[in-house]
Amino acid sequence: MGVILTPADTLVQGVLGGNRLHLARTISRVENQEQDAHAILASLYPHTGHAHIIGVTGAPGTGKSTLVTTLAQSYRQAGLTVGVVAIDPTSPFTGGALLGDRVRMRALAGDPGVFVRSMATRGSLGGLSKTTGDVVTVLDAAGFDRIIVETVGVGQAEVEIASTAHTTLVVEAPGLGDEVQAIKAGILEIADILVINKADRPGLDRTLRALEMMLEIERGSVRMIRHHGQLMRVEMPAALADSLSEDENRWQVVVMKTVATGGSGIFELRERIEAHRTWLLDSGEIVVREQLRIANTLENIVRAELNRRILASMPAAGMDGVVEAIRRRETNPYTAAEGLLRHVK
Amino acid sequence: MGVILTPADTLVQGVLGGNRLHLARTISRVENQEQDAHAILASLYPHTGHAHIIGVTGAPGTGKSTLVTTLAQSYRQAGLTVGVVAIDPTSPFTGGALLGDRVRMRALAGDPGVFVRSMATRGSLGGLSKTTGDVVTVLDAAGFDRIIVETVGVGQAEVEIASTAHTTLVVEAPGLGDEVQAIKAGILEIADILVINKADRPGLDRTLRALEMMLEIERGSVRMIRHHGQLMRVEMPAALADSLSEDENRWQVVVMKTVATGGSGIFELRERIEAHRTWLLDSGEIVVREQLRIANTLENIVRAELNRRILASMPAAGMDGVVEAIRRRETNPYTAAEGLLRHVK
Repeated sequence: MGVILTPADTLVQGVLGGNRLHLARTISRVENQEQDAHAILASLYPHTGHAHIIGVTGAPGTGKSTLVTTLAQSYRQAGLTVGVVAIDPTSPFTGGALLGDRVRMRALAGDPGVFVRSMATRGSLGGLSKTTGDVVTVLDAAGFDRIIVETVGVGQAEVEIASTAHTTLVVEAPGLGDEVQAIKAGILEIADILVINKADRPGLDRTLRALEMMLEIERGSVRMIRHHGQLMRVEMPAALADSLSEDENRWQVVVMKTVATGGSGIFELRERIEAHRTWLLDSGEIVVREQLRIANTLENIVRAELNRRILASMPAAGMDGVVEAIRRRETNPYTAAEGLLRHVK
Repeated sequence: MGVILTPADTLVQGVLGGNRLHLARTISRVENQEQDAHAILASLYPHTGHAHIIGVTGAPGTGKSTLVTTLAQSYRQAGLTVGVVAIDPTSPFTGGALLGDRVRMRALAGDPGVFVRSMATRGSLGGLSKTTGDVVTVLDAAGFDRIIVETVGVGQAEVEIASTAHTTLVVEAPGLGDEVQAIKAGILEIADILVINKADRPGLDRTLRALEMMLEIERGSVRMIRHHGQLMRVEMPAALADSLSEDENRWQVVVMKTVATGGSGIFELRERIEAHRTWLLDSGEIVVREQLRIANTLENIVRAELNRRILASMPAAGMDGVVEAIRRRETNPYTAAEGLLRHVK
């Protein structure tokens, strides 16, 4: 019954040598978390660090896929190669209905300087961040100059994925219900660049004003810092905030307007992303971002491995008995969990 | 420097005896994961099982908060007590701006038969499901007849929270961008009842048709089953699907129309929820749901405890060295994670 698998070494050499088929197979093996996935990733890792990673996130309906497609095309025109990882929160029922987005990305097909990979979120709760990071590692080792990771930024997990990028774009669109909704998602604070896509639609001014107001608050007396990979809010006296705001070395989050379907504003957006990259490199901030990315990656790997061990150490049969005992209120989940934890190696 | 804490025993007795102040304090202690939180929850657990838990989820802008408020009022009119847990994916910057939602829930204030608790998602990545479950346990032990858990259902974590309810409402609204977006969220398959709120808005017919089409697919040849708390998709031959569809004991997901701001359709929605509750009890399906809820709870507790141990076993100082070594490509995250895992007890 054996399936003949390409040996791990062959895949690693293929990825490093620009073999597209081997690249695709490697990503599949990593995505499916095959046994040799970590060995492959460990071999590829020393060859990473070249790519600039761009996270693109925002609520559904903001036109992120089209934006990513045109942005990738723009990078191609500039002579750079692009890898795209698109996270699809598809419904199991409706895979078909969602192809629309990816169809748009077909504009990128046939170009050897572009590699697009869609990943479905279903069934991967908790493991998505890790797998996404792994796929980015493979694309980075494969030598792509820019890697764009597209996620729907409403859930915390999706936000976390985007926040492991070097440059994070938060995409809005006019008239998506109340503009407060954009804020609700809790993703504004991770933006290096804010994009209002579909900027030719009614309601642009209102969305623009709302975002500018948010940015004013941010530039005021509140700062976000990261601690153990978690975003934390730090309030500071107005005087100190003022002095920091005058710090010319600080990155200024601005609002960019695009109409991705027509390509309007895309060149300017690309320029702004590259300006952020230059700022990261010149200010030394790139080191901090890399450390955060790595700390996140490490935590995701450890977490995923522990989850695997938990599942392995909880045989379904034994679990059913525990669950039934809890249901009958003979014990409770908190005491039972203590017992189960003793079984985890 | 000691803060005088109410002893755990006093809190447990207070919660069981209907003391509102003790209830609030207990929830805070559980939410903050204080040291005695699990002891309190273990003491309360034998007194749970009375409440019917209603999950309400949907995209931002669908008017969930207003719907929950009017639904709670409707239950009060029917003489039942209601606990509400509202998960707020607030931005750290914009806590103030989001109060609008909760202001609407003020209509519930002053009624001793209602208890509303808002929980912010920030900083709680991964732990939210567990904490929400813990708070539901406290409210259940406190004797509330119905507990409504409101989440923004776009992220997988939020979906997971709603799916631990007895009855799950997925809320849509007309004209929220493309109706495909609703489907994208991947939450339709967890719905026991679909609600189109803001049904007086333009675009109702289009949204209604889209949802009805989705339901047709569901009634067709695809079934969702749960395995280890994960939703899985099972395709089956049309003939088998037909025979199952004729099973009169199956719950029929229907689309309800409401205008929560005016109270229209709320009575019918409440009736439908109660019909679902009756169906769960009569069909014995309640046992399956309870088992899933308990299995989820157990897994969440074990996961949270392991995460705590991981963090405890990764001193920040030592971690910094590992991260820096990875950044210099002297090692890689996959090999380093193996090393860290050896330190987890």
